[in-house]
Amino acid sequence: MVSTGKIEIEVKSRLGDRRALERKLRRLGAMKIDDAVESDVYYNHPSRDFAKTDEALRIRVCKGNASLTYKGPKLDDKSKSREEIIITLDDAKKAEELLLKLGFRKVAGVRKRRRVFVLSKFEICVDSVEGLGDFFEIEVVAPKKGYEKVRDQALELLVRLGGKEPERRSYLEMLLSKQGR
Amino acid sequence: MVSTGKIEIEVKSRLGDRRALERKLRRLGAMKIDDAVESDVYYNHPSRDFAKTDEALRIRVCKGNASLTYKGPKLDDKSKSREEIIITLDDAKKAEELLLKLGFRKVAGVRKRRRVFVLSKFEICVDSVEGLGDFFEIEVVAPKKGYEKVRDQALELLVRLGGKEPERRSYLEMLLSKQGR
Repeated sequence: MVSTGKIEIEVKSRLGDRRALERKLRRLGAMKIDDAVESDVYYNHPSRDFAKTDEALRIRVCKGNASLTYKGPKLDDKSKSREEIIITLDDAKKAEELLLKLGFRKVAGVRKRRRVFVLSKFEICVDSVEGLGDFFEIEVVAPKKGYEKVRDQALELLVRLGGKEPERRSYLEMLLSKQGR
Repeated sequence: MVSTGKIEIEVKSRLGDRRALERKLRRLGAMKIDDAVESDVYYNHPSRDFAKTDEALRIRVCKGNASLTYKGPKLDDKSKSREEIIITLDDAKKAEELLLKLGFRKVAGVRKRRRVFVLSKFEICVDSVEGLGDFFEIEVVAPKKGYEKVRDQALELLVRLGGKEPERRSYLEMLLSKQGR
């Protein structure tokens, strides 16, 4: 089997004061590289329950570009690190139609405005999520082997930027839990 | 649900003399628009058997471009007409990796050299299929409603071009049957 062997490391925290964080990021020399609205739709599997297997399948539309992402189960209980496979697509509507034909079921949508900053190897995403509020995430891709060291660096940066207790739930899980689903 | 509402009409016949057919096509004013090797891999569903439901899911690589295609069950017993959804992808290997993570299983590969001619609204594909020999297919896309009329025109053209009894099996089905699978 083909495997990229890469892990997406993600640590996240609820955010009190977005402007204060963005000032802090700029003082540290972080550079803003993106500011866009991301519209995600999540799907469940025809014969297994992703809520139980801790996987996810999503179609994202951002600035008119579509992508399909598979996320594997989280790898530890300190972060949201997990295997991720992303494919770029030409058409989100056709991709949804294809998934529905294969028996995948639409679960929910997540819409957010995301500002992305870069600080050395880390990406810091400052998110305003519809229905949930403000959060920031630190993301970095690392080889599967020995990813824990990079994850711990990400957790240190989270604290340095004023992050509270890391939030391990995805926005989808938080939305579904808020809706009592 | 999103739906394109389009049907891919396909009629196919085994081919005795490829050169004679290509001469005939040129005499009728058909224009050759493509000549390329197509490498297809077919996958089966994690929880239903596409051989029984008469569906198909395929990743195609042609001239370095990748696509993912879903084919619905055949609509009649005269042709291979069926609903088809095609997505263009950036990376066939990542797409296969994603399908395998979702529990899809690789069934077999089909490799062919395909020359494509256009004659009015029809595409005529002259195929040399590895392990199966030469065939030609007439393809045309039509609205779902009233597609039978266009199908009958395609069948007439098949006969006019020297086609024998229409072959309704896909190359995948023919290969699997040859291998006794």
